[in-house]
Amino acid sequence: MNGIVDLNSDIGESFGSYNLGMDEEVIKYVTSVNIACGWHAGDPLIMEHTVRGAINNNVAIGAHPGYPDLMGFGRRNMDISPKEARAYVIYQLGALSAFARANGGKIQHMKLHGAFYNTASVKGEIAEAIIEGILDVDKDIILLALSGSYIAKLAEEKGLRVAQEVFADRGYNDDGTLVNRKLPGAFIHDKEEAFRRIKDMVLEGKVTTISGKKISIVADSICVHGDNPMAVDFVKYIRESLIKDGIQIKSLSEFI
Amino acid sequence: MNGIVDLNSDIGESFGSYNLGMDEEVIKYVTSVNIACGWHAGDPLIMEHTVRGAINNNVAIGAHPGYPDLMGFGRRNMDISPKEARAYVIYQLGALSAFARANGGKIQHMKLHGAFYNTASVKGEIAEAIIEGILDVDKDIILLALSGSYIAKLAEEKGLRVAQEVFADRGYNDDGTLVNRKLPGAFIHDKEEAFRRIKDMVLEGKVTTISGKKISIVADSICVHGDNPMAVDFVKYIRESLIKDGIQIKSLSEFI
Amino acid sequence: MNGIVDLNSDIGESFGSYNLGMDEEVIKYVTSVNIACGWHAGDPLIMEHTVRGAINNNVAIGAHPGYPDLMGFGRRNMDISPKEARAYVIYQLGALSAFARANGGKIQHMKLHGAFYNTASVKGEIAEAIIEGILDVDKDIILLALSGSYIAKLAEEKGLRVAQEVFADRGYNDDGTLVNRKLPGAFIHDKEEAFRRIKDMVLEGKVTTISGKKISIVADSICVHGDNPMAVDFVKYIRESLIKDGIQIKSLSEFI
Amino acid sequence: MNGIVDLNSDIGESFGSYNLGMDEEVIKYVTSVNIACGWHAGDPLIMEHTVRGAINNNVAIGAHPGYPDLMGFGRRNMDISPKEARAYVIYQLGALSAFARANGGKIQHMKLHGAFYNTASVKGEIAEAIIEGILDVDKDIILLALSGSYIAKLAEEKGLRVAQEVFADRGYNDDGTLVNRKLPGAFIHDKEEAFRRIKDMVLEGKVTTISGKKISIVADSICVHGDNPMAVDFVKYIRESLIKDGIQIKSLSEFI
Repeated sequence: MNGIVDLNSDIGESFGSYNLGMDEEVIKYVTSVNIACGWHAGDPLIMEHTVRGAINNNVAIGAHPGYPDLMGFGRRNMDISPKEARAYVIYQLGALSAFARANGGKIQHMKLHGAFYNTASVKGEIAEAIIEGILDVDKDIILLALSGSYIAKLAEEKGLRVAQEVFADRGYNDDGTLVNRKLPGAFIHDKEEAFRRIKDMVLEGKVTTISGKKISIVADSICVHGDNPMAVDFVKYIRESLIKDGIQIKSLSEFI
Repeated sequence: MNGIVDLNSDIGESFGSYNLGMDEEVIKYVTSVNIACGWHAGDPLIMEHTVRGAINNNVAIGAHPGYPDLMGFGRRNMDISPKEARAYVIYQLGALSAFARANGGKIQHMKLHGAFYNTASVKGEIAEAIIEGILDVDKDIILLALSGSYIAKLAEEKGLRVAQEVFADRGYNDDGTLVNRKLPGAFIHDKEEAFRRIKDMVLEGKVTTISGKKISIVADSICVHGDNPMAVDFVKYIRESLIKDGIQIKSLSEFI
Repeated sequence: MNGIVDLNSDIGESFGSYNLGMDEEVIKYVTSVNIACGWHAGDPLIMEHTVRGAINNNVAIGAHPGYPDLMGFGRRNMDISPKEARAYVIYQLGALSAFARANGGKIQHMKLHGAFYNTASVKGEIAEAIIEGILDVDKDIILLALSGSYIAKLAEEKGLRVAQEVFADRGYNDDGTLVNRKLPGAFIHDKEEAFRRIKDMVLEGKVTTISGKKISIVADSICVHGDNPMAVDFVKYIRESLIKDGIQIKSLSEFI
Repeated sequence: MNGIVDLNSDIGESFGSYNLGMDEEVIKYVTSVNIACGWHAGDPLIMEHTVRGAINNNVAIGAHPGYPDLMGFGRRNMDISPKEARAYVIYQLGALSAFARANGGKIQHMKLHGAFYNTASVKGEIAEAIIEGILDVDKDIILLALSGSYIAKLAEEKGLRVAQEVFADRGYNDDGTLVNRKLPGAFIHDKEEAFRRIKDMVLEGKVTTISGKKISIVADSICVHGDNPMAVDFVKYIRESLIKDGIQIKSLSEFI
């Protein structure tokens, strides 16, 4: 609503001999990156390489903790306890933080990955344990969370800085949740339509839901992808369109 | 030689439902602990629990990084590159460091585990990469290394604080290396003899080798074990005997 | 109801340097063992050792597949797909089967572990995928499943041999499910009462539920534990009491 | 020397969300495939998918066991014991074998992967333990091993069927070992030259070494790759050239 927005993307999700994502490309167009921490993806060599890439491209570094499930890429829910949620976040935050420090950088934010992100968005005890874990490690870390989610609200109450993220390419339900990936309307395929929706979210704080309603939404950051050349083109288009329309693109720590 | 010595022990080596070591007992008698970081042993819940135990017992916290080999408990050599050695150390240091910070503590030292320890003691490129990793993360961390080893010397040259460790229950060769575990003379079974050897090492800077020679050795810290009740009794005996003989037992940061 | 019953126990759940369970003791008193396959517990060395122990003790070998979650010991539910459930079962069945074959034995049965067991008991698509996986690998394998469960019924319909298992030390609800571990009445602590319940289940096909009702139950096998000396004593007591009362104890393949 | 040769390729080396190798392409041109078994690469879903692809393309199935080192893709040597080598081979053989059986196929051969392959080629105790593991599981499995290697000779002595493999794109030393990857002459880049060398190996049992000598070599199978489009083109070219020159391409079980 203040005409400023962050662009974030998940990177560093390769592992060992396996390459995933066009990190070198997408990093040119975003302001914040969420770097995998070795659990759902990433390994120490890739983490250090990715952190250096972020520093060289002047992009803000975020930790992207996931479940201990490389085989499922952290996308399958695991029924972990609040204590485990806290410890898994601290572990991964710490590991990435050391690579940032070793290369002259620091962690700006944390964004959970996949099923961990989804569960923490709605499950009170898990959300609370994670928030306390972050506060205990470093009160300055910004939590990047689903716009309007339980964890976003609770984190603000608990004194954490929170950035709310929206999705350029996803449909929304009337209650502000994302349309299930299996249902029609889950994805916005047209890039111009996607950009119009972003503009509404960033400038007016509104999004049109799948039923046609306009609901309020906070859009501090837009989640974009770098999986393939088309995705990278989309990010480039969004970035250029935002700039053309006078919307400022800044990393979270500059305005949260 | 100054009548001060540290007692260190590996703890936090349980994993998930698996318990290992009498951590709660041995922690009462030592001044520094080396805490597993989730690779050869340990998991995030256990790391947090162990860090809290160290803080509550007023014992200095050390990171104990190992190879990514839980099945082999980090005891099988893996032919990793210097870059990997560096990144594996940074990752594990960072993870443990976050648990220390989250609980109001900090890392005093780092001691490598098992085959990683042995390899780094002798292999120049690996040793150098590890030292630079530590320096890049935190120049204040003390490296706890095999007394007289290559890595101990190189680390001092590179400006890292180094503590040299000796073994109370192991025989030494004339060149200062440990007698191979499979050979006669590898282990000292009598606790009084073990203590006499410790005294020689701490007060005179000498150890009698397997051939009967007296060689010089630096003994900043004595490595002790908490695997079983007998081991814990041994630690208790060593501690009490040191105190009785006027040798001060202090954690590394107080005198290194 | 025919006065014959099997006694089964989970064994081979050690991992690397970690020991768990009194396998050498409990194996003397049971007729079938469920051997961990390297996912929630167990590793190849332990699997071969355990298979040999079963053969030497003339105890029937079963595979005990779990979720890929060593850190959680396979006790945390993971939201896997039916295709994954099938493939995870085939993989683990095959691995254990090779150790049996290499040592002159064969697999008699399969029993799922922990959260995988619980989920497959109630979730139709998962149960079906697992049953088809077993049938595709080896039609002669007996499925050892929770007495009265969905998977037990479906497996019989699909042509698999099924053995239904009951718990000596657990309370039952009126619908035949186990009383939640957190509620009063979940556990039967008195061994004489436990044995009376077993006798009712084996000879009359009845169990008294927590509300006092008598319900029907099929008891082909009794699940017993070898975690600690008391558990082993309990198994010994059950075995001797069964024999004294003329109930035959046989491995599943002799009567299913 | 009998004008018959097998073409083998490593496939099924994807993992979870990570794709590796052009399996669907290369499988059209080879007669035997070596399928990863979930340790250095591969997972149960991919194993089943790959086994089905082999069956559908009428290509012989081989197990491709590696070290427990997904992060290093099984390419880093690990100092495992003979007992572990045996157990790791049995475990992986069994797992793949179950997928073959479940889909109406069977395992023709086994070829070790990466550092495990290299170590077993030269280390006597490891080689022996592996051979005995295979014999214990299934005497009909063919061992596909480095031509002229210690393990190839020992396996023949022990009564295992052995196929000796050569490399189309690699230089050879005078003692029959491969030229180190870091030295000049390690790779043959010209495909016509590579084919001429293959013809010499298959028809005359000779290869020209890096020093210009002609030495004897047994070429039962040629190892080819499917990592990228150029590699696949190379395989296609080799296959067509072999056929044009009247050399028969058959899977191992047809002539070993």
